[in-house]
Amino acid sequence: MLNLDLSNVSPFLPAGWRTGEEKGLEKAHRHLLEGTGAGSDFLGWVRLPADYDKIEFARIQKAAEKIRSDSQALVVIGIGGSYLGARAVIETLTSNNYNLTRKDSPAIYFAGNGLSADALNEVIDLVKDVDFSVNVISKSGTTTEPAVAFRIFKALLEEKYSKEGARGRIYATTDAKRGALKGLADSEGYEEFVVPDAVGGRYSVLTAVGLLPIAAAGIDITALMAGAAQAMEQLAVPGMDNPAWQYAAARHALYQSGKKVEILAGYEPAFRFFAEWWKQLYGESEGKEGRGLFPASVEFTADLHSMGQYIQQGERLMFETVICFDRARTKISIPNDPENVDGLNFLSGKGLDFVAEQALRGIILAHVDGGVPNILLTVPGRDERSLGELIYFFEFACGLSGYLLEVNPFDQPGVEAYKNNMYALLGKPGYEKQKAELEKRLGG
Amino acid sequence: MLNLDLSNVSPFLPAGWRTGEEKGLEKAHRHLLEGTGAGSDFLGWVRLPADYDKIEFARIQKAAEKIRSDSQALVVIGIGGSYLGARAVIETLTSNNYNLTRKDSPAIYFAGNGLSADALNEVIDLVKDVDFSVNVISKSGTTTEPAVAFRIFKALLEEKYSKEGARGRIYATTDAKRGALKGLADSEGYEEFVVPDAVGGRYSVLTAVGLLPIAAAGIDITALMAGAAQAMEQLAVPGMDNPAWQYAAARHALYQSGKKVEILAGYEPAFRFFAEWWKQLYGESEGKEGRGLFPASVEFTADLHSMGQYIQQGERLMFETVICFDRARTKISIPNDPENVDGLNFLSGKGLDFVAEQALRGIILAHVDGGVPNILLTVPGRDERSLGELIYFFEFACGLSGYLLEVNPFDQPGVEAYKNNMYALLGKPGYEKQKAELEKRLGG
Repeated sequence: MLNLDLSNVSPFLPAGWRTGEEKGLEKAHRHLLEGTGAGSDFLGWVRLPADYDKIEFARIQKAAEKIRSDSQALVVIGIGGSYLGARAVIETLTSNNYNLTRKDSPAIYFAGNGLSADALNEVIDLVKDVDFSVNVISKSGTTTEPAVAFRIFKALLEEKYSKEGARGRIYATTDAKRGALKGLADSEGYEEFVVPDAVGGRYSVLTAVGLLPIAAAGIDITALMAGAAQAMEQLAVPGMDNPAWQYAAARHALYQSGKKVEILAGYEPAFRFFAEWWKQLYGESEGKEGRGLFPASVEFTADLHSMGQYIQQGERLMFETVICFDRARTKISIPNDPENVDGLNFLSGKGLDFVAEQALRGIILAHVDGGVPNILLTVPGRDERSLGELIYFFEFACGLSGYLLEVNPFDQPGVEAYKNNMYALLGKPGYEKQKAELEKRLGG
Repeated sequence: MLNLDLSNVSPFLPAGWRTGEEKGLEKAHRHLLEGTGAGSDFLGWVRLPADYDKIEFARIQKAAEKIRSDSQALVVIGIGGSYLGARAVIETLTSNNYNLTRKDSPAIYFAGNGLSADALNEVIDLVKDVDFSVNVISKSGTTTEPAVAFRIFKALLEEKYSKEGARGRIYATTDAKRGALKGLADSEGYEEFVVPDAVGGRYSVLTAVGLLPIAAAGIDITALMAGAAQAMEQLAVPGMDNPAWQYAAARHALYQSGKKVEILAGYEPAFRFFAEWWKQLYGESEGKEGRGLFPASVEFTADLHSMGQYIQQGERLMFETVICFDRARTKISIPNDPENVDGLNFLSGKGLDFVAEQALRGIILAHVDGGVPNILLTVPGRDERSLGELIYFFEFACGLSGYLLEVNPFDQPGVEAYKNNMYALLGKPGYEKQKAELEKRLGG
């Protein structure tokens, strides 16, 4: 079970701060469980760990097995929630060097999440001489970045395996009923998986969107779902003992007290992209109407020697949320040095995990002393079950947080602005007037 | 040459904001060139691109050639400035997947920059069956993370190659005269390189600290230095035409106007760790006395689908600094689709670089319309010379920025706080009293 420690939050807040958040939380909790709040069309994630489509889940496992048996690489094409969730889970549970250290699993390359020609050509080079499959993930099929990448990798597969052969290597995760990709998948006969209507991109990691690439990497998605289901049961119980309530309450109270930045601090390099997933979840859910905590992340202890100075003594505008995995997966002991050149023989024979634990305790106190409130979240281990719990915990607390902030936690109206400008400048039919206006501004 | 565009800054600032910064910049500029300001013991980087030790430079090149000829992997042990600079340059100039895509160059693994047992064991697994060398980088030789890692990899090398053989595979970058690592390197006969006294860690990428790993990756360090030297000449000229003055002025004026977060936005996945290097440079130089911009980073267009919503409509507390590499290294054209399933045939035959350029232009306007000031820095290409320029540009502008903020840009007094707590909790001799106090606080 996750353990949340708020003992280093309370000193920064007025007495009774928890009580002040309770009424808002009761309402937010009802919004999530009963669909009474804004964005209630997007609550499909709330009961997902129990109510998921078991038949599709079995198909995901089967497709993953096929990919593992016939492919040395899987190209996962998607952006935003169709990218970060799978990458976050795969790296956290294996390594940020997964593609370098994997043994019997296919390489997983993410494409279609940007517009870098160099990055796209790199993935092409990496797969062109091996057997590979493609999982294209897009609700509409018309988002520029993944659509462009899919054109390219589809052509590559068809050239390599013929149109018929390519069919058996393309997995389309898309809308259940409509859209460009759905139409193509139907007519071509690709195996299809569903991006559910009621689950937004940033909440989609436990749907086929995340699960197929995760399973293809050899990760036990049954245990991942079981962890999420456990958290779902636990967090459905309202009250201040609920850790999601506590987390949402603390960050909301800190925000109200003037803290504008939340730093998620991890101690494992493998955790880097989980922090990116968390940034999307919270940034996109809360960052609207001129409100919301700015989500940032650091990797300790590396970044104590980069961002550490700022955290200790810079602008007092942030608090930290520290993720600690309780058990290291592997052990290593510090060798003795008879000459004790570095003066570290007081550590000889100690495990590195012991050093890391003392560092974490010392860092928290140092930052608290420097005026940075601290939320400590201890996760049992870097395993499927624990990560499932952590995902659901952050999702549920994020829903609560958005409602506490009085925004719709499930929309993202601001994302259209850049897309419209981009379409216009690219000369998309129908955008002629906007193009002329933009070109005038850019020329001026 | 770098090109700085501030046209999307001025609308957010009072008329005449540049004039308001000029006096401070004149003084800051003198502090850097004449050593008249705080921290003037650490100005060795200012003339470094011209005044570097040419004999040592040739030794670095020779050592890199030796590593390239006798090693399939190089383990680089260092933390903070002894880690991020080399990693930033290697990845930016090759790929964030360097170890996966390298051809005739050794793998470069960074170790000793954290306390994760799993991450350390991973590097051990990756090198134990190949020929490898170690570059240990530490001014003192007693910083916990790199010292622990060095104990382990030194033992591994000695076991594999004998004590004598290991000697020829260990490169020590350390103090010129004193310290634990210097003493050991002298007595063992390791090849030694110098961490200069007058160059702080975050400014050390163009010394042996960064240059040896960079050269080992097959990067042309002569061109890198030439680019830096060109920027040095250009930026030594005082005045508002100086792009470093402009950048420092803009970010200081924005900070004074209430912006608290600077987001560095790149468009190349390979740029991710350059942004980390930049965060250390600015965060550690400015983040003191309760002041300084909080440095954050995003990778576009991927993060437009995660942090994009917040940037467009969240708290108006930030501005963006966008890095644009003018030339992509490789080309790729968007294939035509006779059926135009995704509706993107208006892009058929267009290069992805064209799409990326229009996206960048559209994104800037969208964010500016959303109330986010924008600084656009165009870099000629993703090549050694351009990157040398960019490094020096950021270093010089950072020195100016620190003085504008009236802090010492070259110290990091806050970094000791966590180290002292950690030493005490680990039971380091001499810290007994502090340990008892801390344990009491933690137990309470």
